[in-house]
Amino acid sequence: MLEYQQMRIESRLYELGYVLPLPPAPGGNYTSAKIVGNLVFLAGVISADEQGVIAGTLGQGRSLEDGYHAARCCVLTQLAALKEALGTLDHVQQIVSVNGYVNSVAGFAESPKVINGASDLLVELFGDAGRHVRAAIGVSALPRNALVELQMMVAI
Amino acid sequence: MLEYQQMRIESRLYELGYVLPLPPAPGGNYTSAKIVGNLVFLAGVISADEQGVIAGTLGQGRSLEDGYHAARCCVLTQLAALKEALGTLDHVQQIVSVNGYVNSVAGFAESPKVINGASDLLVELFGDAGRHVRAAIGVSALPRNALVELQMMVAI
Amino acid sequence: MLEYQQMRIESRLYELGYVLPLPPAPGGNYTSAKIVGNLVFLAGVISADEQGVIAGTLGQGRSLEDGYHAARCCVLTQLAALKEALGTLDHVQQIVSVNGYVNSVAGFAESPKVINGASDLLVELFGDAGRHVRAAIGVSALPRNALVELQMMVAI
Repeated sequence: MLEYQQMRIESRLYELGYVLPLPPAPGGNYTSAKIVGNLVFLAGVISADEQGVIAGTLGQGRSLEDGYHAARCCVLTQLAALKEALGTLDHVQQIVSVNGYVNSVAGFAESPKVINGASDLLVELFGDAGRHVRAAIGVSALPRNALVELQMMVAI
Repeated sequence: MLEYQQMRIESRLYELGYVLPLPPAPGGNYTSAKIVGNLVFLAGVISADEQGVIAGTLGQGRSLEDGYHAARCCVLTQLAALKEALGTLDHVQQIVSVNGYVNSVAGFAESPKVINGASDLLVELFGDAGRHVRAAIGVSALPRNALVELQMMVAI
Repeated sequence: MLEYQQMRIESRLYELGYVLPLPPAPGGNYTSAKIVGNLVFLAGVISADEQGVIAGTLGQGRSLEDGYHAARCCVLTQLAALKEALGTLDHVQQIVSVNGYVNSVAGFAESPKVINGASDLLVELFGDAGRHVRAAIGVSALPRNALVELQMMVAI
């Protein structure tokens, strides 16, 4: 029974057609997840899919659809880190916060539409518990020229 | 008596000549406030007043005074979100943190003077309990081309 | 004995050849550290050493080595703030998070190599307890034109 419940969110992922990537391998003296009390702090992750880093700049050769997809991929990587830290995604009680940084040209005003790719997937997966606070910020440079960087905090 | 106390911060706002705006309506699958234990995490809000979004770029047609005013308006919106979440601002035990993002030209060095508009109002309203940690960052793009985005966390 | 233990991290700093600077003096209505439960939130600090603010832009006259050094200096300033708040660095149970903002040209892809200057020192000093989550972000403007701004959270 417990085992069944412990597969709940992952079954949902599977039903929706998503596959968790490998957990991120930090490229420095840091870690992917840190637990303090019932809060799990995650390291920022950059957008990547099976083809590797999703790079580029919004407003310069990259579309809103590209950005939305990139933000969604960031969530999958965050969930992979979370699963590695917790053993199962079913220990998540609520998604608390999402900080989304969008690699964009100066004056790009649509970062919320990009970060919606993250928010929509979180609510699709976790329902109301997936509804989080967030900030969407346009920045001029991200690691490895990634299109999106995302950092989450969750409560367990 | 309780009712009297519960109006304390709002009376102070009124005395200082401020009016709380309507609470922000999230433009996506997220929420304005999330409570975990005694911490309240708020979503980032963009600068707006009665005339709508306060947009523009510091160092390019917008003055420090404009930025200071914009940061102060962000606090009022954050307080409206907080009141909606808590019922009353008098449950605030302390303002913990303020992250202020300033839409600015590259090399703009005065973001602290802009975010002072937020810090000054918080201390005016809450006294020592309003003294927070903060970060002021200059960025090249904010949602709806807002001049300032601000994100707060408070303890209750 | 307690006194001996309370000097552990500071002895380690001394052995490694580092000296804590004066704690930062906030230039506004905010504070350097805020304690809520067992979490200590620190204000963002800008890169500085004995010569004053370490200013400039990565990718435009400033090298990765300059950035790495600047990030390390930010940690020393954060530790000075932490010591001021706690009395001793030995109350630190773990370093939870590091947010590093790198003043850089658009498209600068190497911010992680800069923020490694912070991560490496934290692990050198605190061992595994110093291993944190982090986000590295390239931005176009920082207070006083600083090369790096860093914001930490720790658990005590």
